[in-house]
Amino acid sequence: MDPHPALPDAATRVRDSFARQRFMATLGATLAEVAPGRVAIDLPFEDALAQQHGFLHAGAGAAVVDSACGYAALTLMPADAAVLTIEFKVNLLAPGAGARFRAVGRVVRAGRTITVCAGELLALPDEEGAEPVPVAMMQATIMAVRERPALRD
Amino acid sequence: MDPHPALPDAATRVRDSFARQRFMATLGATLAEVAPGRVAIDLPFEDALAQQHGFLHAGAGAAVVDSACGYAALTLMPADAAVLTIEFKVNLLAPGAGARFRAVGRVVRAGRTITVCAGELLALPDEEGAEPVPVAMMQATIMAVRERPALRD
Amino acid sequence: MDPHPALPDAATRVRDSFARQRFMATLGATLAEVAPGRVAIDLPFEDALAQQHGFLHAGAGAAVVDSACGYAALTLMPADAAVLTIEFKVNLLAPGAGARFRAVGRVVRAGRTITVCAGELLALPDEEGAEPVPVAMMQATIMAVRERPALRD
Amino acid sequence: MDPHPALPDAATRVRDSFARQRFMATLGATLAEVAPGRVAIDLPFEDALAQQHGFLHAGAGAAVVDSACGYAALTLMPADAAVLTIEFKVNLLAPGAGARFRAVGRVVRAGRTITVCAGELLALPDEEGAEPVPVAMMQATIMAVRERPALRD
Repeated sequence: MDPHPALPDAATRVRDSFARQRFMATLGATLAEVAPGRVAIDLPFEDALAQQHGFLHAGAGAAVVDSACGYAALTLMPADAAVLTIEFKVNLLAPGAGARFRAVGRVVRAGRTITVCAGELLALPDEEGAEPVPVAMMQATIMAVRERPALRD
Repeated sequence: MDPHPALPDAATRVRDSFARQRFMATLGATLAEVAPGRVAIDLPFEDALAQQHGFLHAGAGAAVVDSACGYAALTLMPADAAVLTIEFKVNLLAPGAGARFRAVGRVVRAGRTITVCAGELLALPDEEGAEPVPVAMMQATIMAVRERPALRD
Repeated sequence: MDPHPALPDAATRVRDSFARQRFMATLGATLAEVAPGRVAIDLPFEDALAQQHGFLHAGAGAAVVDSACGYAALTLMPADAAVLTIEFKVNLLAPGAGARFRAVGRVVRAGRTITVCAGELLALPDEEGAEPVPVAMMQATIMAVRERPALRD
Repeated sequence: MDPHPALPDAATRVRDSFARQRFMATLGATLAEVAPGRVAIDLPFEDALAQQHGFLHAGAGAAVVDSACGYAALTLMPADAAVLTIEFKVNLLAPGAGARFRAVGRVVRAGRTITVCAGELLALPDEEGAEPVPVAMMQATIMAVRERPALRD
């Protein structure tokens, strides 16, 4: 008998949680990829996300990379765990110029309590065959917590 | 004769630049305070800014603290300088629960090229006399660059 | 009856653990202050700690601030807990020039599992009445773990 | 005619600078590899480098990874430039257990003023064919400065 009959698999849990993140919808971000230890989120550029020079605001970029890292961590956790970002650090490598961005979060070390992720934000090229441009890189620390009823849902 | 007759003062430059940050308007953030080496930004909570449990998304909070740090740095720079965030690191201290948040950026060390700022995000209490609750703390590195014509404006 | 009759108090635990840190002796560092949520470590400058320009190596400075943060966290933990540094981030603010340095670690948020600390490294002035010069500032994340028998002792 | 006839090449500059880092000798660290954009430093474990449980102190490990990152940045800079670490952030991934460690610094983005590096600390296996164990990972920001006469040399 399945000891966790009602528990959804990791990809489903990521998709369900992402769908509840109202801020991702506000940014216009969508889930692009969910694999064990790796999650990608797409973010089309809009003027609503711009800083003072018209590029993607670092905070908008950091938000999607942080989410990608958190969900990458979630894919390797037990089904009753939720993720909490303890901290993250992000270096901005290039102006956030482009029509589409992709945030990729990848688990570097999965522990019982603490998971460490590496993330990056890429500006996707308009032309076929061109290389994505790294815009930001992140190191994030995620904690597993037992899922509790959401306090504001 | 004034060698910089047409250059606006620091507070005006901060306000002008903030007004051009479309992302701050998207978040609903407003400038609350501009003083030499210190800038505060207010952020009322809205469901549009929530993560999966209904609290303020860490990325939304980080975005306003990052902006507060960058503008705090700008207040101490020459009038023809613009600011570029090189990197920031943020620790989440408590769930982003509350009706109103305040991001405060403060210059710790102002250099010719590099400025280091400390930032924090506070959940402002509903009741008179109650203390703000620290939600996040940031350490940010800002670079002064000569202002160039904005590329997408 | 005392439920923990044999457990030493926080200051004693910090002093005992510090005395077992061989690397602190290698650096020439000594405990200067142990208070609830706050620990200071003194580090006299020696050529053996220098980088290529003769200043204190950033890594030597970071090591003592990291230890100060870890022990500051330990002062607020249960007597059977040990501390583990999960991560730290340090900004270098000024060259490590001086005859004596002091690292100060301070608890910003003490949680059951995760404690966040702020640390700084100060160059202490030679002259009476002069102000210490901030050389580095740190944000560190510390985890409480149940003490286990030391593996290499 | 060579416009910089007396300037040494990058590998020589790295080796000369490393040899002047007294702290690296104190730790027992040696240069293992110098390539464009990549530097490795070896660190044999000694009790003098231990923390309270007998493992490598995080600060000792961070010091060699910081140096590896700084020198990796130096390999891509003009011959009259020196490097200054602005900040670094390190996550500890596993206890520093092992007889030999290797720190690797790698340039992620080389700019005219700012270079961003990724670093890691590996515990090298005793047995043939075994895999190195990642002990720490770093993200570091390095600034190029024009070389000045060293103030304490």
